[in-house]
Amino acid sequence: MTVSPFAPRGTKQDVEEGASFAPKFDRDGLIVCVTTEKASGDILMVAYMNEEALRLTLETGVAHYWSRSRNALWRKGDTSGQVQSVVEMRTDCDQDAIELIVEAGGDGKACHTGRRSCFYRKVERAANGSTKLAFTE
Amino acid sequence: MTVSPFAPRGTKQDVEEGASFAPKFDRDGLIVCVTTEKASGDILMVAYMNEEALRLTLETGVAHYWSRSRNALWRKGDTSGQVQSVVEMRTDCDQDAIELIVEAGGDGKACHTGRRSCFYRKVERAANGSTKLAFTE
Repeated sequence: MTVSPFAPRGTKQDVEEGASFAPKFDRDGLIVCVTTEKASGDILMVAYMNEEALRLTLETGVAHYWSRSRNALWRKGDTSGQVQSVVEMRTDCDQDAIELIVEAGGDGKACHTGRRSCFYRKVERAANGSTKLAFTE
Repeated sequence: MTVSPFAPRGTKQDVEEGASFAPKFDRDGLIVCVTTEKASGDILMVAYMNEEALRLTLETGVAHYWSRSRNALWRKGDTSGQVQSVVEMRTDCDQDAIELIVEAGGDGKACHTGRRSCFYRKVERAANGSTKLAFTE
């Protein structure tokens, strides 16, 4: 019999210092996930998971997300081939965020724009307070 | 005169391929921010910014956040001394997430639990599907 991977939320002490995985989903049933690339350490993307996506990610070792724009479960790489193999999953102090450390499959381009990372622009600020984005990829 | 650092949201093409910084705040007026440490490349924390926090971060070069638990603007380090100096700010393809690359001040312990990073536990899964958290820091 398969056991639920999620524990109920306990006290602040339990959540922060305990060994039970009790992720906190927001009022839309989602938790934010930062996905980093094992080889480079770079952030590839920020996405969201619902309970099912998180459970499937744990079960299969392959990153699943919840697409807020398509309102659908999304196994990363199903259409693009860029399957993400999970090397390690982490959670933060209050367990309302997930970090996935992955090996990126396919051509390694995690971003739908065809880039390796979604964070391909840096914000530059001029002396007068205006900003512009500079491309890094 | 100081110019607004934020551009209006344009088309998908503008947002993804343009040079205008047009961050998307959610229905609570917040944008998620992943803060990484320059020296190690590690994720220190995931937090949220409202428009004012993001503007102040740009203006001062020091990380400001919005505390959802305290409902207050929060200049990181004001009470702890762990001021974060921004080395670089990035945004993602759809500009609904921020990455801050920082140098951590004070004792460098970004997490309120006294650890360097909030992501101090990894999720381990047993064959029966149960999970537990293993401390890395």
